[in-house]
Amino acid sequence: MNINVSSTGALEQKEEILESGEPEKKEKKKGEPVSELRQDLVTGDWVVIATGRAKRPDEFGQYERIKNDTGIENCLFEDPKATGQEEDVLIYHREDGEWTLRVFPNKYPAFSRGALPKNLDDGPYFAMNGSGYHEVIVTRDHYKHIQEMEDAEVAEIFDAFQDRYLDLMNRKSVNYIALFHNYGKEAGASIAHPHSQLMAIPVISPYIKQELDGAELYHKKSRHCVFCTISDHESEHKKRVVFENEDFIAFCPFSSRVAFEIWVMPKKHSPYFERIKNAEKLKLADVFKKSLNSVCKALNDPPYNFYIHTSPCDGKDYPHFHWHIEILPHTATWAGFELETGIEISTIQPEVAAEYLRSVINNS
Amino acid sequence: MNINVSSTGALEQKEEILESGEPEKKEKKKGEPVSELRQDLVTGDWVVIATGRAKRPDEFGQYERIKNDTGIENCLFEDPKATGQEEDVLIYHREDGEWTLRVFPNKYPAFSRGALPKNLDDGPYFAMNGSGYHEVIVTRDHYKHIQEMEDAEVAEIFDAFQDRYLDLMNRKSVNYIALFHNYGKEAGASIAHPHSQLMAIPVISPYIKQELDGAELYHKKSRHCVFCTISDHESEHKKRVVFENEDFIAFCPFSSRVAFEIWVMPKKHSPYFERIKNAEKLKLADVFKKSLNSVCKALNDPPYNFYIHTSPCDGKDYPHFHWHIEILPHTATWAGFELETGIEISTIQPEVAAEYLRSVINNS
Repeated sequence: MNINVSSTGALEQKEEILESGEPEKKEKKKGEPVSELRQDLVTGDWVVIATGRAKRPDEFGQYERIKNDTGIENCLFEDPKATGQEEDVLIYHREDGEWTLRVFPNKYPAFSRGALPKNLDDGPYFAMNGSGYHEVIVTRDHYKHIQEMEDAEVAEIFDAFQDRYLDLMNRKSVNYIALFHNYGKEAGASIAHPHSQLMAIPVISPYIKQELDGAELYHKKSRHCVFCTISDHESEHKKRVVFENEDFIAFCPFSSRVAFEIWVMPKKHSPYFERIKNAEKLKLADVFKKSLNSVCKALNDPPYNFYIHTSPCDGKDYPHFHWHIEILPHTATWAGFELETGIEISTIQPEVAAEYLRSVINNS
Repeated sequence: MNINVSSTGALEQKEEILESGEPEKKEKKKGEPVSELRQDLVTGDWVVIATGRAKRPDEFGQYERIKNDTGIENCLFEDPKATGQEEDVLIYHREDGEWTLRVFPNKYPAFSRGALPKNLDDGPYFAMNGSGYHEVIVTRDHYKHIQEMEDAEVAEIFDAFQDRYLDLMNRKSVNYIALFHNYGKEAGASIAHPHSQLMAIPVISPYIKQELDGAELYHKKSRHCVFCTISDHESEHKKRVVFENEDFIAFCPFSSRVAFEIWVMPKKHSPYFERIKNAEKLKLADVFKKSLNSVCKALNDPPYNFYIHTSPCDGKDYPHFHWHIEILPHTATWAGFELETGIEISTIQPEVAAEYLRSVINNS
């Protein structure tokens, strides 16, 4: 396949501020700060917002995408039975009998059902085999991605997430369930047919642990949920809000790690995604779909990932956590500084990104 | 520019195990474990080694690179004065007067020298302006990258790292100094001329903090340095060693995050990189250069990043830390699962990667 990357391309964006000698974009005074360091209120991590090298919001979408659709006739998910996929563990149908969504085990899983947890320690190191579940959640229409779906269709995906979560959460050696979606080759989707994935795993992942610890610490200090604090502040001040209704809010986080990052969260304190009510799923679909659609329009159909961060299902209570969805459009590559430090460098202020996304929503 | 990615390409490698329905690579028995979960002894983070979808070591290098060299005649670093770069802060010369290495401030820095630290808090959030230093460390030969240099030339780069570190470490608002190198477009290098970078920043980065905390905790429990434990174990058992001499060891870490990851560390307990002796720099260059060269040969000239992890320079002591270099060849893209969880999925066992790298060294 071929990728054409224009010289204004987003693939270049991160390097520009890391390298010397690129053509100057705007005049700046000697000694003027070129960046802001912003701290994540939950985790304590820092990000850099490189305002001195800021781009205009409409510059982020100006690059070519890798095409990864091999066509509906070669699609492995169009007729999963015919291509030898495993048996469905869940299937939804329309009234006329046609399927609308189905879930089946990944044929080449990263975590396997058969394996019992087994110690694989080696000298001073700890290891175990990868027992767990790895499933794909496939929607019917090969060409209709989430950003183009009706709210009811999006809500059905959340139905499936919840159904599968409830089925797997109490199984042996399942302590966390990851629910995520890759769109576009650059974001890791090698099959173009719209699908999400689920991995039910025996360990609590580092990122979740960091958020759990941060939420716990914040609650200890202030007696408030850190996510409620964020949601209330954003809803009151509006400048980073992308869209909201009475139950859910979408905003570009104060310490966005990537340009046009969006978080979607329930306004009411809710530690556990799997307890979402049916009526709430439609409200969630409304906010989530509008936000995703706005970023897809703003960035000219970017690759993206989204995932749900929710409490572990390891038998413990997490009263101070607050589930949410994080949407990460793929606009830049991590280089040495990010890999060394974990400090990410973004070239647009979240306030500017949110304003642009609101204008996209208002004009559509 | 154009990228051609073959269908066996490493860009595909991560997706293969995350997606269902890719052509089967090898037969496996029902219930056979498809992966291992390995824990990082320092940080407690987990990685997945997806042995069920393992590739042969020689398959990782089979993809085309993006060409990013615009030619020596357009090079911004070939004659830095002529292209309007800032004044050198350090320059090394040969006896005949020709320069061999020079360091100057990045013309478009991510952190700025002039700016005094200033509070930029916003509601519940913490922020400050990005005061600090951002420099580039340029070697003379446009076409000679580190993997092709003589040991003495590599040692000179470590000289420059140390000189600049010592000059900046006690400046106001410098609490950590990041030293890193990007090679190849996909690894974030937009200028092809060989150069490393330095960022002296006011905050301790999350990744360093995680390693500092892990080392502290391990010492509290066992009265040993965790890095010494690792170095001793690897040197004794050899299976993950790439190359070693009496003072330094290079190995593929037990919980490698990416395929062919290599760590290079002093065998003697050493918290502070800036205290390295001149004689040690040549020993380091020997191990570092051989390891980097082996991975470049094994993966057919891959993009890579490397960086030094060393103790902060915030006025505190870090007796239980142990500086080291991490080399990360660029062989795959993070997708939804990695972004959600921070758990990385690698498709080769570090033991197999190390064996392959040793064979490359022995055959050259």
